[in-house]
Formats: sequence, structure tokens, C-alpha cells
Amino acid sequence: MMKVAVVGAGLIGQAWAIVFARGGCEVGLWDGDPQASARALRLIAELAELLQDKGLLDDAAGAMARIRRETALEQALADAAYVQENLPERLEVKQEIFARMDALAAPGTVLASSSSSIAASRFTDELAGRARCLVAHPVNPPYLVPVVELCGAPWTSPQALDDAQRLMAGIGQKPVRVRREIEGFILNRLQGALLREAFRLVEGGYVDAEDLDATVKDGLGLRWSFMGPFETIDLNAPAGIRDYCRRYGGLFESIAREQTDTGPWSEALIDTLEAQRRRLLPADGLEARRLWRDARLMELALHKRRTARDA
Amino acid sequence: MMKVAVVGAGLIGQAWAIVFARGGCEVGLWDGDPQASARALRLIAELAELLQDKGLLDDAAGAMARIRRETALEQALADAAYVQENLPERLEVKQEIFARMDALAAPGTVLASSSSSIAASRFTDELAGRARCLVAHPVNPPYLVPVVELCGAPWTSPQALDDAQRLMAGIGQKPVRVRREIEGFILNRLQGALLREAFRLVEGGYVDAEDLDATVKDGLGLRWSFMGPFETIDLNAPAGIRDYCRRYGGLFESIAREQTDTGPWSEALIDTLEAQRRRLLPADGLEARRLWRDARLMELALHKRRTARDA
Repeated sequence: MMKVAVVGAGLIGQAWAIVFARGGCEVGLWDGDPQASARALRLIAELAELLQDKGLLDDAAGAMARIRRETALEQALADAAYVQENLPERLEVKQEIFARMDALAAPGTVLASSSSSIAASRFTDELAGRARCLVAHPVNPPYLVPVVELCGAPWTSPQALDDAQRLMAGIGQKPVRVRREIEGFILNRLQGALLREAFRLVEGGYVDAEDLDATVKDGLGLRWSFMGPFETIDLNAPAGIRDYCRRYGGLFESIAREQTDTGPWSEALIDTLEAQRRRLLPADGLEARRLWRDARLMELALHKRRTARDA
Repeated sequence: MMKVAVVGAGLIGQAWAIVFARGGCEVGLWDGDPQASARALRLIAELAELLQDKGLLDDAAGAMARIRRETALEQALADAAYVQENLPERLEVKQEIFARMDALAAPGTVLASSSSSIAASRFTDELAGRARCLVAHPVNPPYLVPVVELCGAPWTSPQALDDAQRLMAGIGQKPVRVRREIEGFILNRLQGALLREAFRLVEGGYVDAEDLDATVKDGLGLRWSFMGPFETIDLNAPAGIRDYCRRYGGLFESIAREQTDTGPWSEALIDTLEAQRRRLLPADGLEARRLWRDARLMELALHKRRTARDA
């Protein structure tokens, strides 16, 4: 059974621990604060029970038995084939922990960061083992949302990326390869493009936040939850994607000419959005709504699993 | 029971007929070509059976009994409280049919077009009854995808828009209000913004079409299928959407500065995408995949109905 290390026992580290253990890996969990890793282990156990109740984890006790809390980083890395780092999103933090991990880990161990916004080249360039370092960016929470963006620095070896890809696919995640470093990787760039247009439409008085959300959740977002945007347009013209581009390229080009502003989101616009959202959901309801969201994500994960089996 | 008219019996007209009949309306179906409306009636009956089998229509025979084929436009419009027009997407076609409908329909009848790209102001400005004309843009197929974009011309009466909104909500669709005319309305502008970034990322060699689709269907698209983009970010920062904008506005502003090109999609890029898609799905598999897509949309519609009931 493959041994992995999870470095940092906050929310993302806890989530990764359950993902790896559910996938059959032995997990060494380490945090610089031993109290944090002890608390994390209790939270992970609760989470494992919840996932088992929902049908998203076969054997909670078995998974928990595969997670070991380590008090020394050296011990966590010993024999680990793969390390998933989850410390705070600050460059100097990443630089320091990667230097320590590179010095401690065996030569073949892959060192991956959960970083969402700092490219691997910025914190691995001076390391002897920089060829085995990469970013493996999850979406929160990874036990419900399978995509993991894998992005190496220019010097990351294909071997390290292939190893990470094989591991992720083997434990039921969905690895995607980002082939050159770029700010925001793929997911947040797509999200950013859509959000900018959404903000612009509210700012221009074309639609309110509630109706814009409905346009996505009761329209545009349905196909995207099982096909993605390219397959969607490939099926939306008789002869496929080229045919689609010929039919609708002009419309989208015309729209794009109005989508070029790059300034910051204005304070007035943020006030408008905050006011519209708080009318729909008072601030003291945010936490309950997050639990609702996670319950919906669980139901959707089960639904997708069932329909994929039937397909 | 409300009487509605469906003008034009192509794919969209057929879909609207089943949506209205399923919702309890009496439907008069008319097409300039009587053979087309006769054929449409047979296809609608098959569709009704399919939806009944899938659990998305309680009583196919009852719904079919509410659809009447009309051979005269005047007859179809007689007593109709609402008309949904579905002729080809050409300005002169819309102008001509709206002039005819405005001359024939009773004064209180709402006249709506399914147009996806022609604003109501362009084909209603000279009509005596222009205040009752608007666009009600569906997503195909509307019996599975509930969103309907309602967009009036500057002279459309609030009454006509309210009537359309009430009707759509009453038959189980999800009307959204587009408060000023804009090219592409809301849905296609959001789609266009995301597609442009998707094309750009493939063109730049950052990701291939398959992995980009996976980033959406196994990541970004999951929440959007039940929440929409604003609620998503509202829940993704501890104190809500304002907090989110403060934390991530800088990242998205930085990304936006690289998202300003407005040229047409290049032929080389379209070749690349066509080649990548055809490797995943040969051209002779497109039709079967569309049936798969519709089956998945049906399963998703049922899933959303169940989870909404449980909530």
C-alpha cells in the first residue's frame, strides 16, 4: 500500500488525509503544531463517519486506521512516496517548508503543494530536488469535488508529474494537467472570466444577482456539471465544434468586444452585491447554508456516481 | 385553464408545446407549413411518452389532449393569453410574423419570441401593440432546462413582462428578468466569457480540451449546477461576498488583464479544437452522444427535483 504524507493539518490537510485514506493509502499527518494535528485527527474521524453515513466512504474505521499522526516531519516523510503540503498561502512559508521537505525526503519522493496562487517555480528553484516538486491544487473540499490541477515548474520532471497523476487517478480524484505555469491555473481563470462578466452585468443594471445565479443553476450550469464547455458546444451544432464556431463565432466575438475592462471591482458594485446577497441570505445564515451546500455536493457526487455506472 | 399559442413547429416549438401542456395550459400549435405541424404533433407525442417513462411528466395522454394543431394562425391566436413564437432567427422573419400576430391577437395577449440573438426592439418598434411584445429566450430543450430569459424592448409594458413571468413560473420554468436589452442576454454572455478564456488557454498550450472540460465537469461546474456563481463566492469566504472580493479581487483583476483580446477565434485554434474533440468523439458518434446528453439532463432534472424536495 502506498504511503503518503500530509503536511499541515488545517481544513485542506484534513480533507486530503481522508481522500488518501479512502483511496487506500497509508497517511502520515504532520503539523508544526502538535495540538493542531491532534484536533485534526478528531475532526477527520467525524468527517469519515459522515461520509460513511452518506455512502461516500465504505469503511470509516478502516480509513481512520490508515491515518497516523506524526509529531516529527522527518517521521512523516519516511518512506512516503508522495507528500501533499497544505501550509498557509504565503511565499516565504512555501519556500521554507519545501527546503525542509527536500532535505528530508528520500530522492524518489514527489513533493506537491496545494497552493492555489503561487507557482511551483517561485518556491523550488534553488532546491537540489526541484525536479520532483509541483503544485497539486485541489478544489475544496476534495473528498466531494474530484478535480486536482497538476502544474509543474519548467524544471519539474515528467516522471514526477506522471507519478502524481497516477496516484490521483488511482484514489478516485480527477487530475488535470496544466502544461505551463499560469496565474490562477485553469479553474480560477475560467471562474474569473465568468465572474467578471457577471459583475459587469449587475453593474450595468441588466440583471440582479439572484436572477444571474438562476441563469447558471437552472440553465448554463446543468450541462457543465457533467460535460464541460467544449463538449457542450461540440454537441450544440449539427456537425460539431467547428460548425458551432462558424455559426456562433460572430456573436461571441461581438460580445467579447464589450468584455475588455480590467479595473478592480468597484466598491459601489461590491456594496450592491453584498446588499443583494444579504437580502437573500442574512450573514448569520452563512454557516448553515455552507452545510446545505456540502450536503448538496454529497448528493450530487452520489448522483454522478450512479449515472456514470448506468452509462 | 390558460390558453397559449405556439407559433412555429420546429424543434423549439415542439419543446415549448410539451412544456406548456405539461404545465396544464391548452396549446394551439401552428406552423406556416401544415405538414410540419402534423409531423410535429407525432414527435411531441413520442417525446411525451419518453418524459412520462422517465418520471418527468405525470400524464402523457392528458398533456397531448391539451395540444391542438391549428391550420390558421388566426385560429391559434383566438383566445390565447400568451403566444410563443419560434420561427427562424432572421430579422425579417421576426418582423413579418410579429406584424401578423399583432394584427390578429386580442389586445391583452402577450406576444413573446424565442429569439436568442435578436432584441425585441428590432422587430416590434412599428407595431400598434408593441407594448405587449418581448423576448422569452429558452435554453434547449426547455422541458429539461428550466431557465427562460425575459427581455422587453424599452417600450414593453411591465404588465406584459409580469404576465410572462407569472406564466413561466406557474408551469415550472425559471424566468429571469433581463432589465435592459443587451446582445446575447445573460446566459450567452456568461458562456461567451468563459468560452473565450477556454479557447485562450488551449491556444496558449496551457491545457487541452479534454482536461479543460474535466476542470469544469469535475470541479467548477458542480456548485454552479445548484447555486450559481454569486452564491458560490458568497459562501467561499468567512464573511460573505464582500469578504471574498477583498481576498480574491486582486487575483481576478490580475488575471483579467490577460483576458482582453477580442479578435475572432483563429482558424488554427478551431482546427486544434476540432481535432481534439474528434479524437474523443468521432463525427459519427455525435448523434448518439446527444441522446446520452439528454438522458443525463433528464437524470439531473430528477435528481434536482428530489434534492429540492428533501431540502
